[in-house]
Amino acid sequence: MSSRSDQHSPDTRSPQTPGPDTRGADTLEAVGESAALARIFPRLPAAASALLGPGDDAAVVAAPDGRFVVTTDMMIHGPDFRLAWSTPHDLGWKAAASNLSDVAAMGAVPSALVVAIAAPADSPVGLLEGIADGLRDACEALSPGCGVVGGDLSVSGTLTIAVTAFGDLEGRAPVLRSGARVGDVVAVAGVLGEAASALRLLFADAVDDRGEPDAALAAALRPAAAAQLTPRPPIWAGPVAARGGATAMLDLSDGLAIDSGRLAAASGVGIDFEGRLLGDDSALALAGGEDHSLLATFPAGAALPEGFRRIGVCVDGSGIGVDGVAYDPAGWDPYRDWSGSAG
Amino acid sequence: MSSRSDQHSPDTRSPQTPGPDTRGADTLEAVGESAALARIFPRLPAAASALLGPGDDAAVVAAPDGRFVVTTDMMIHGPDFRLAWSTPHDLGWKAAASNLSDVAAMGAVPSALVVAIAAPADSPVGLLEGIADGLRDACEALSPGCGVVGGDLSVSGTLTIAVTAFGDLEGRAPVLRSGARVGDVVAVAGVLGEAASALRLLFADAVDDRGEPDAALAAALRPAAAAQLTPRPPIWAGPVAARGGATAMLDLSDGLAIDSGRLAAASGVGIDFEGRLLGDDSALALAGGEDHSLLATFPAGAALPEGFRRIGVCVDGSGIGVDGVAYDPAGWDPYRDWSGSAG
Repeated sequence: MSSRSDQHSPDTRSPQTPGPDTRGADTLEAVGESAALARIFPRLPAAASALLGPGDDAAVVAAPDGRFVVTTDMMIHGPDFRLAWSTPHDLGWKAAASNLSDVAAMGAVPSALVVAIAAPADSPVGLLEGIADGLRDACEALSPGCGVVGGDLSVSGTLTIAVTAFGDLEGRAPVLRSGARVGDVVAVAGVLGEAASALRLLFADAVDDRGEPDAALAAALRPAAAAQLTPRPPIWAGPVAARGGATAMLDLSDGLAIDSGRLAAASGVGIDFEGRLLGDDSALALAGGEDHSLLATFPAGAALPEGFRRIGVCVDGSGIGVDGVAYDPAGWDPYRDWSGSAG
Repeated sequence: MSSRSDQHSPDTRSPQTPGPDTRGADTLEAVGESAALARIFPRLPAAASALLGPGDDAAVVAAPDGRFVVTTDMMIHGPDFRLAWSTPHDLGWKAAASNLSDVAAMGAVPSALVVAIAAPADSPVGLLEGIADGLRDACEALSPGCGVVGGDLSVSGTLTIAVTAFGDLEGRAPVLRSGARVGDVVAVAGVLGEAASALRLLFADAVDDRGEPDAALAAALRPAAAAQLTPRPPIWAGPVAARGGATAMLDLSDGLAIDSGRLAAASGVGIDFEGRLLGDDSALALAGGEDHSLLATFPAGAALPEGFRRIGVCVDGSGIGVDGVAYDPAGWDPYRDWSGSAG
């Protein structure tokens, strides 16, 4: 956890004394970085793969087969979450879950995370403690043995959580998006559309009269909104799919339609879904993002591994369809489509 | 490069058409994420260690000895840089250099980076292109063979660059902060105080009459300010020190006084510097941060490896001193000491 922030004025450099009384008693600026880190460290999950954990210039992580899988993803206050809806624990949980899912989608077992957090100086230290607790609880629930081996703490006007996650392929080839062949069965592990359904609920019922996100209203919706706020992707199913002969796999972050289109394009096939296998609301299942379920393809006739259910088949052609009718997914672009509301 | 940003209103989700005329023609929101990525990818340096590069859910990187070194660090607009002083190329360069230095400080050879960038939606695409060029040029200049294997692109009100860097220990034990012993020689590779001196220059001569950072004035100072804007730490010297028997090592990010104090505390020794070996301005050498030079200790009597020069000795006791007189370093805390000016 090195955290020198530079280009401060040399004149403002050495106030070791507490700040003025206008500062809250338990904020990051009042407590200081070292004390904040001392409160966060014990809350973080330990990684079984850590040969050297936090505290030096870098950590050392085991990579038993001579390779490691790596993915990185940021969560930003505004486009990625609303503080009126998500607790700090939710943020830590979701940051871990969404990155673990990308590791699992390669067929790898998650081994470790590094986490960089930038928060406003007047944030309560409890914000960071809550994020740490969420990281720990998500690792313990979704990928036992995976933990945090290092990180960085910074100050920013915009609360930002950047997670980089690592995984172990256990000697196997990674399962790419490009390996599906015509005739392969298309299968999914995890829910379809539930995160989007929960988000709809929050936008409908957790905003005040002016349309602004409201914390009390969101709290009352918590069990129903869990799929959005604290997704539980089937991380364990990634390596299971790889061992079970998956020919291609990816994480469903942008919705089944968009992501299956990516797998189809990378593999040079088309995908046809059976509408009756997509649940009661197939439109929601196709469009809804952030489930972080795993979409995988398997050779025709092969027994599907535990956790996976058939939803379609790879066909000659391109793009995706439902019951033989082409389906054109709408795209989401963070630079065009964010409303600007931070909540 | 997965980049779904969530919790957007479902109602604002699929405008694939260009935005209103108020948007600039070549901004991230006008061009869109896919086109921006297509312009950035070819500029990024390739990594010799990449077994699978960007484009899938995760990358796969070689870890030849069954371990990898990992460090992460964020650069935030405001506390970490001023856009009036640093070009996008500078930002990419410095983000790479500061992370590579943490890898080198373990005695490892940098192998790969992942980079997450969050930028305001109205940023010109050229901002990201410039950052990519800086990442590439720093890798090529400071650590040939190291490259970018993956990343993430997000929207944020605060320009943020999060780099995670990896390294290969080539079968050696990592060089920790804690291995120095009484009698060991204290040596440094790289400059001392030059980055801080350059920062002083910018604060003195690259601000306008109101004290605000000024781009034209900074541009005129560029050769003199290079140590601050585009540091050139001796990355190559990290593995050289490890091969040469370094007993402890760290990256000088917060200044010689603070960082040598950390090494001394971790090792349970004191450090006494010879003032005459610290250059013409020993106070600047001790206080100045961000040089990213490497401080290492070697057994007494051992020949110092190429690039290292003796500046002191490990002594019985604790803390640091100069010519036998105790020296009390002032600390810098990002949550207390940032003035709030972003420039």
